[in-house]
Amino acid sequence: MGKQTLKVIPLGGLGEIGKNMMALESGRDIIIIDSGVLFPQETMPGVDLVIPDISYLIENKGRIRGIFITHGHEDHTGALPYVLQKLQVPVYASRLAVGLIKLKLKDHKLSYDPKLVEIKSGEQIKSGLFKVTFFPVSHSIPDAMGLAISTPLGLVIHTGDFKIDLTPATGNPTNLGQLAEICRNGTFLLLSDSTYANVPGYTPSENVVSKEMAELIGKANGRVLIATFASLLARIQQIVDTSHKYGKKLSVVGRSMVNNVNLAIDLGYISDPGEVFVPVKELRKYPPEKSVILMTGSQGEPTSALTRIANRAHHDIEITPGDTVVVSSSPIPGNELPVSRVIDNLFRQGAYVLYDKTSTVHVHGHASQEELKLVLNITRPKFFVPVHGEFRHLVAHRELAIAMGVQQDKVFILENGDLLELSNDKGWLGNSVPAGNVYVDGNLLWAHDSNVLKERTMLSRDGIVIVSVSINKHNGAVMSRPRLASVGFIERSNSPELLERAADAVLLDLKSISKNNPLSSGDIESKINKSIGAFLFQETRLRPQIISFPVLT
Amino acid sequence: MGKQTLKVIPLGGLGEIGKNMMALESGRDIIIIDSGVLFPQETMPGVDLVIPDISYLIENKGRIRGIFITHGHEDHTGALPYVLQKLQVPVYASRLAVGLIKLKLKDHKLSYDPKLVEIKSGEQIKSGLFKVTFFPVSHSIPDAMGLAISTPLGLVIHTGDFKIDLTPATGNPTNLGQLAEICRNGTFLLLSDSTYANVPGYTPSENVVSKEMAELIGKANGRVLIATFASLLARIQQIVDTSHKYGKKLSVVGRSMVNNVNLAIDLGYISDPGEVFVPVKELRKYPPEKSVILMTGSQGEPTSALTRIANRAHHDIEITPGDTVVVSSSPIPGNELPVSRVIDNLFRQGAYVLYDKTSTVHVHGHASQEELKLVLNITRPKFFVPVHGEFRHLVAHRELAIAMGVQQDKVFILENGDLLELSNDKGWLGNSVPAGNVYVDGNLLWAHDSNVLKERTMLSRDGIVIVSVSINKHNGAVMSRPRLASVGFIERSNSPELLERAADAVLLDLKSISKNNPLSSGDIESKINKSIGAFLFQETRLRPQIISFPVLT
Repeated sequence: MGKQTLKVIPLGGLGEIGKNMMALESGRDIIIIDSGVLFPQETMPGVDLVIPDISYLIENKGRIRGIFITHGHEDHTGALPYVLQKLQVPVYASRLAVGLIKLKLKDHKLSYDPKLVEIKSGEQIKSGLFKVTFFPVSHSIPDAMGLAISTPLGLVIHTGDFKIDLTPATGNPTNLGQLAEICRNGTFLLLSDSTYANVPGYTPSENVVSKEMAELIGKANGRVLIATFASLLARIQQIVDTSHKYGKKLSVVGRSMVNNVNLAIDLGYISDPGEVFVPVKELRKYPPEKSVILMTGSQGEPTSALTRIANRAHHDIEITPGDTVVVSSSPIPGNELPVSRVIDNLFRQGAYVLYDKTSTVHVHGHASQEELKLVLNITRPKFFVPVHGEFRHLVAHRELAIAMGVQQDKVFILENGDLLELSNDKGWLGNSVPAGNVYVDGNLLWAHDSNVLKERTMLSRDGIVIVSVSINKHNGAVMSRPRLASVGFIERSNSPELLERAADAVLLDLKSISKNNPLSSGDIESKINKSIGAFLFQETRLRPQIISFPVLT
Repeated sequence: MGKQTLKVIPLGGLGEIGKNMMALESGRDIIIIDSGVLFPQETMPGVDLVIPDISYLIENKGRIRGIFITHGHEDHTGALPYVLQKLQVPVYASRLAVGLIKLKLKDHKLSYDPKLVEIKSGEQIKSGLFKVTFFPVSHSIPDAMGLAISTPLGLVIHTGDFKIDLTPATGNPTNLGQLAEICRNGTFLLLSDSTYANVPGYTPSENVVSKEMAELIGKANGRVLIATFASLLARIQQIVDTSHKYGKKLSVVGRSMVNNVNLAIDLGYISDPGEVFVPVKELRKYPPEKSVILMTGSQGEPTSALTRIANRAHHDIEITPGDTVVVSSSPIPGNELPVSRVIDNLFRQGAYVLYDKTSTVHVHGHASQEELKLVLNITRPKFFVPVHGEFRHLVAHRELAIAMGVQQDKVFILENGDLLELSNDKGWLGNSVPAGNVYVDGNLLWAHDSNVLKERTMLSRDGIVIVSVSINKHNGAVMSRPRLASVGFIERSNSPELLERAADAVLLDLKSISKNNPLSSGDIESKINKSIGAFLFQETRLRPQIISFPVLT
């Protein structure tokens, strides 16, 4: 190669929503953008969190200059406790993101005190050959940033998660002039958010929700319960302000909502215009029409405040007819059913429920096609890599870029672990690096190809049957009747005799083993498993897992 | 009571989508409307199907006059093999529905030959005190019917699943005049489809899809692969006709698609305008731009043709760049993630994929709010019970009915198992009857409160650890080192010694049992379980199920 190149190595967030992480490499220097988690899907039973595989980064530890965090959401910061344990590098992030990261690190015990650097928009950080400047973007959390990265080959723009909200609820709108100024000489490489690249038009402004919320809080002549994302501070501030305007009191419930609101108040992202906040126990003193409750659970999370309330299992709050409940979010793909169950159970208890299908109580934080085109227009990139999104979103974004004039051979759809190498005028794929899901489960980590998840899925299909039998190791004689137990296989009260009959079947099969030619423990095990499996399948058409313990005595 | 009443007893389909079933009772006579299944959700691991609890019907077997099937979809007919095994009553349905039911019954061995009666629209069946007339409605399957039921208290209208499609792709549009004629003297009770009662406006006509499909089949200069519901015969006929128009050949793949298309051809619901159909093996002789393939899998079902193709696991078909794939359906709630995975994997292989988010390749078959209002207007019911839908849909439909002038105290939101009793001028809830999910798993049936599903869910969280140990029954001495096995708990190669260390821990704990006071097998079991559980939680923060087999020798 000889010549200078820029390497682009996505380690997460491509072909999936979540677990965003990317490495850029120039000469000997590496910088990392984001370190997020993915929330486990139904194919990952029992898993707590999914983090990126960072073995490539661990191998190249000495070359990493820093981690740049675009904003404080979990899918961009949640892996930091694991990443920082392995890589002792500085983290650069906005003030709010630093606050949220500190909150998160409290729950983990790192073996050292990591360096977290608060960065303001416009400030430049020199990281080896890279010079990184943060610029502000609109998103569903304050202080979201894009990155303008000066490299030896030219300017790299990473949008982070963004939308172009020209009338945000609080804060300044996206500064398109500033971005145009940064990119006045064009952009070498654009990395842009693809999450909604298959949606035509513009994403509505947060303003739309603020208006609807203000109206419904104002009009409600009963209690108003609002569930939303704990990081949606602009919306929360609107709820605070509207409550104040109508002389209502606001209580915050749910651990993560309380933590985030407290942090936001401490850091000045949320302000109380006049004793609006009251503890939930005190709220009872106020009439329902003066009561607003803000909580977590808009995704139907099983242990959240809203889900507990919906299931009549919350210790402080129960629904009474006349309550209005606002589910101020859209279900993240995979959460549709739990969210519907929560809404239905709230209706069952007599609440009037407003949700995304029936009311304008949520807009999301990602750019739609027209906004993506605007960014392509302003940045005029030579190379384009769509980031953040499932494969179909990346494809849709590629089409937009090509329609906007980016040369087809300079647009690359990458997957996690791909290594894209760019010279001044062309790009090619090098040897890929390890990437994929690492599953966090309790205090253990599983690799993406771990058998554990396959075994759990199999267990959940037809359950398991366990067999114990004592066998004389000298003559192969069965010393005691086989004992069987099962979990998740059959309702024992329905078929009390089934396992006993299976024991008879094994006994018969074991007796047929030649006494003159005693078998090994392994042979006996496989004989038992086969015998039980065949009997149970014939009886039930189910195929439970079978584990047997022949005890040779 | 003495006075004549009408009893309305939903046994499925209320507060849920699927498993539709309802009983109407007048004097000693009972009729049943539909007998559907629910496809298992993620909270029902390993379950094949969910059917209604019919113990109330079994108890009142002698009073049942017939089962009236509104249309041939699984969620209205799928429980018939189980229901007919218990209740030997005649089934009345349209010609297509009877054909589909016969196809289904072939896979089950009933102990008798059930009486299936083909009914034409307009024909009246006398069933005890009930007189039932079928009337045609538009839906996503041909020959869908509503029921006009004359009862001693007045006319009951059950819409079945419907939309008001005035320009259906094939067949006649919904005959609103006929319905108006039937209801000219008003309606005593309206039971109306609520599935989309929370969606404003009108549901688009199937016509819209026909146009889009015709254009994309016509334009495609590569192969076109189309996945849709096997029962959407109107759409399938459009695909056949368009293929013919452009001189293309059509192959059908996937068991249920092949079965349904063959049945539809036999019964005359689909016709081939001129050798359009060819076997898939023969299709290879034609150039890609002359090839259309119709298949199952639009819901991402794991064993369907489309999913296999997406995973490069289909024995006849593989994607080549230039292929257009049309996913002609919307994901049923709960299927969003598998459908997305299929779409992504097709894109990955270079296909161009059209799906509901990006193209008009599907409309559903249920009425939106304006259509529901039209039916309320035409029928002018005294009593109203919204049917078919989750709780929030029933609430939305109740609001529409009240807005249309139905008296608030004559609208009843019921749940499965409720017993609504109606006199001439009022309604009240009687004692509820057993209702709920019955799970079909292999050849077994579980009750809705079965432990099996809870056990399976627990197993899938942290797996299971099994312990076997021989103990001298006379002095409590441990005769052999405990043997441990695990499934779905840990990656053994990661922690090869963990189970051995757990064995050490048990051994230590067992030695502390007083030798002078030997314990029962149950005591030893619980001692072992506690010991292992505590050790493993401390080491891993996981709580696997633990099963131990102390063998007393």
